[in-house]
Amino acid sequence: MATGTREAMLSSAIRLFRERGVGDTSFADVLAASGAPRGSVYHHFPGGKKQLVSEAIRSAGGYVAANFERSTDGPAEMVDRFARFYIRELERTDYREGCPLMAAAVAGAKEEAAGPAANAFSQIHGALTDSLTKSGVKEPRASSLATLAISAIEGAIVLSRTEKSTEPLNQTREELAQIYASVLA
Amino acid sequence: MATGTREAMLSSAIRLFRERGVGDTSFADVLAASGAPRGSVYHHFPGGKKQLVSEAIRSAGGYVAANFERSTDGPAEMVDRFARFYIRELERTDYREGCPLMAAAVAGAKEEAAGPAANAFSQIHGALTDSLTKSGVKEPRASSLATLAISAIEGAIVLSRTEKSTEPLNQTREELAQIYASVLA
Repeated sequence: MATGTREAMLSSAIRLFRERGVGDTSFADVLAASGAPRGSVYHHFPGGKKQLVSEAIRSAGGYVAANFERSTDGPAEMVDRFARFYIRELERTDYREGCPLMAAAVAGAKEEAAGPAANAFSQIHGALTDSLTKSGVKEPRASSLATLAISAIEGAIVLSRTEKSTEPLNQTREELAQIYASVLA
Repeated sequence: MATGTREAMLSSAIRLFRERGVGDTSFADVLAASGAPRGSVYHHFPGGKKQLVSEAIRSAGGYVAANFERSTDGPAEMVDRFARFYIRELERTDYREGCPLMAAAVAGAKEEAAGPAANAFSQIHGALTDSLTKSGVKEPRASSLATLAISAIEGAIVLSRTEKSTEPLNQTREELAQIYASVLA
């Protein structure tokens, strides 16, 4: 039950960050959304909001990074799966929920948000670069192709959200598929 | 002088949004940063913070969009200039200031932020698509190449900021240059 409350608070925090950003999410919002009792805040997160933010972004980033690191897909499939995941997420939430890592990263001054986001991006980039080199792409091209795909998908999530349309993500996905196909051919 | 105060508040608001996001920027922060007297808030912005946010993002977006719309450069140069602009901005501010449109767009629930950001992205996309079609690229490819470039640069600004390195932006810039060169060849 204690773990249940803690997990519920973390997942509510992640959802609220995705919806409205880190700065606009208060502890009170997280309590209300998770149904956790007020007393649970400092019981579960003695470091206060900073700890909640840091753990929530670490958890969200770990989830995304693990999907890349454990994947046995080739690089083109990894990229396509990442784009399709967010197309589904935007459709599922009526364009309300973006990427928690972007929400954390733009809250630049907050090291508790930006730090775990930077780590997750670096893990994703490492996994995709490895997959590209295993498929025969040499460095430094592998690294820069990984950066292009991550940047483009993250940017397209934001464009799709503001337009309330999956078109930017679908266009980006198709362009990346062409680039990866031509490099991996 | 009245105009001076108003302009100072708008430019301070844009800078603070770029640094820490929209949700973490209060009216008091904008007053402190701009040196505007407390009484000027409702004098200049009778609609309160919503009006300030909306006007600041409209102003920042208008600036970026005008740079695209008035450009006589070809599409490859437009994209390269946009990437280089943010490389310089990140270096100038020691990676503190990102793109105001991204900061506005991730504050999804705030229509006063997301609306003007969506308009600006749409203007930039339109200008770049036009430039691509004028250079002989057919639709729908022109639209999707424009989306790829805007998404990738916006995403790479965030990656560069979290890594405190211009490498992601430089890598993205080089990949986009290759893609645009091959399509425009």
